[in-house]
Amino acid sequence: MAIPTIEWEGGKDGRMKIIDQTLLPGELKFLYCDDIQTVWRAIKELKVRGAPAIGIAAAMGTYVGIKGANTNNFEAFWKKLKEVTDYLRTSRPTAVNLFWALERMEHAAQAYSHEPVNTLKEMLFEEALEILEEDRDSSKAIGRFGAELIRKGSTVMTYCNAGGLATGGYGTALAVIYAAKESGKDIKVYACETRPLLQGARLTSWELLQHGLDVTLICDNMVAHVMVEGRVDLVVVGADRIAANGDAANKIGSYGLAIVAQEHGIPFYVAAPVSTFDLRIPSGSHIPIEERSAHEVTTLGGQRTAPEGVKVYNPAFDVIPARLITAIITEKGVIKEPDAKKVQRLLVGAG
Amino acid sequence: MAIPTIEWEGGKDGRMKIIDQTLLPGELKFLYCDDIQTVWRAIKELKVRGAPAIGIAAAMGTYVGIKGANTNNFEAFWKKLKEVTDYLRTSRPTAVNLFWALERMEHAAQAYSHEPVNTLKEMLFEEALEILEEDRDSSKAIGRFGAELIRKGSTVMTYCNAGGLATGGYGTALAVIYAAKESGKDIKVYACETRPLLQGARLTSWELLQHGLDVTLICDNMVAHVMVEGRVDLVVVGADRIAANGDAANKIGSYGLAIVAQEHGIPFYVAAPVSTFDLRIPSGSHIPIEERSAHEVTTLGGQRTAPEGVKVYNPAFDVIPARLITAIITEKGVIKEPDAKKVQRLLVGAG
Repeated sequence: MAIPTIEWEGGKDGRMKIIDQTLLPGELKFLYCDDIQTVWRAIKELKVRGAPAIGIAAAMGTYVGIKGANTNNFEAFWKKLKEVTDYLRTSRPTAVNLFWALERMEHAAQAYSHEPVNTLKEMLFEEALEILEEDRDSSKAIGRFGAELIRKGSTVMTYCNAGGLATGGYGTALAVIYAAKESGKDIKVYACETRPLLQGARLTSWELLQHGLDVTLICDNMVAHVMVEGRVDLVVVGADRIAANGDAANKIGSYGLAIVAQEHGIPFYVAAPVSTFDLRIPSGSHIPIEERSAHEVTTLGGQRTAPEGVKVYNPAFDVIPARLITAIITEKGVIKEPDAKKVQRLLVGAG
Repeated sequence: MAIPTIEWEGGKDGRMKIIDQTLLPGELKFLYCDDIQTVWRAIKELKVRGAPAIGIAAAMGTYVGIKGANTNNFEAFWKKLKEVTDYLRTSRPTAVNLFWALERMEHAAQAYSHEPVNTLKEMLFEEALEILEEDRDSSKAIGRFGAELIRKGSTVMTYCNAGGLATGGYGTALAVIYAAKESGKDIKVYACETRPLLQGARLTSWELLQHGLDVTLICDNMVAHVMVEGRVDLVVVGADRIAANGDAANKIGSYGLAIVAQEHGIPFYVAAPVSTFDLRIPSGSHIPIEERSAHEVTTLGGQRTAPEGVKVYNPAFDVIPARLITAIITEKGVIKEPDAKKVQRLLVGAG
């Protein structure tokens, strides 16, 4: 992204700065987070979203929460830090990058517990910036690995937003598209609008147009028709949490998209950094699925579109079983036909 | 429907009266059609919609167009009638009931060409009312046949609106649900919202609530997740045109829904009157698919949700191949595992 989705402004006494994504594409406005309540709400209300970007926000948010801690005692500091991380943990349940980043900040604090609190704070500040920097690097590596899988002249379908807006850099799924384009391949894109919050329409098509890509927007229910007409060569999506066996939770609708792609013999790729894997979870059925407000489904642009009294079910994610995934593209390499053994081999290096 | 979706008001000098479905569920307002331009726009703009209801509107619209014809000469009358039917034919391309009803009105005129023009007009008035009456009867018969396929305590998923609002009576797909409920079976329903025009959210859930049904609204992209969670026992949808081999065109998204149902071993039923079959068309790939305005996809509640400059593809229908259809439910009986032979046998009685 020419305009960073998330960054830190003004040194260690500064603040977290994000694009408020709920206002896109109509308005490009920044939100400055000086306290953890603002960080929490920004994550909860999807002002910042996308698994990697949530991780970065959580790390910066931890620093926001402890930078003013007025103590020289590690025990007191640790108590404060745990209050902050436990609070941020409640913002959203599915994307593992949130928990991963918070744990990493906790581990950093533990590792430097012998240092004076002021030094410790600086270490945590550096750790948060390091998480952002690593994410930028891994975006680029994912792009490079993924681009090799795309033939010249391909039409790629993507879902939700796994782009620069979902990360600190230039995306996961969209990084693959950007890298393919940069390497001179002539790429076209179908973006699915992604109900109920329209991240595909609002964010992905905006981002792709900004990068000069040829993008066609469709409703989510048009996928099968577009595929049977032969308009799509491959699908690439992001992920919010990947289990040890390669099952991947992603935005609601991804599972159905993978079924329909398989029916048409179209390769289905998941692009995600290593921080999205959760090896403590054996398979997708154990991934907690966030349910969101009925309001998102019954109301459009402030206008009620469904009758009063109707029940609503609004799961925000679903799980793509590994058997429907052609390959998972990470910054460490590509896992073809993923299973527990191959995931273990790439992530831990065993086997 | 307690309130008729479409009816004729006030004898042969009267007018066509429809519920303006674009305003539901917020407002229940009637539209009176005194001229064929109003009829044409009502069909084009989906104020009246659903294949059977479109057929009825076309028949009544034909009468609206010729009732004032000031001639005693059949040739002149026929010329006027053909102008009217040819004009109405251009309103929407996919639902065959439109063409079927217009042809039926033309045949009636030809059959009574020896009669004085005034008598002929009365005959055509009766023919239009007869089409409405037959549709009401066939709705009920579809309901009876379909209800036999539903077990007590089932949860049924439906798509778009194939209810009273789509017909002159109480629906096709929803007739099955109503009949099952009336026969004392405890039925629950999942209604898919059906982007872009939200007929499922706006119309189906409204109609089902009016009939006292337990209805849960979901976004179209939630179907696979809801199915893998074991929440759905069967799917029943309507159709806009069924080819001779049993391939069925229906609202965009139906094809994907059928693929996902098959993946989960969930029966998928199509409910439609015999007038929805088009035996001149050998298979689904020959059915013309209407493309509608980009505006429907890029704008919600008058608010732009996608960036300017994005391309849009907006097909309004897709085709469910017969191999994915467990059975087609008609007013003449049920065609299990439909194919050309079985369709022919039920419709024409041959074999």
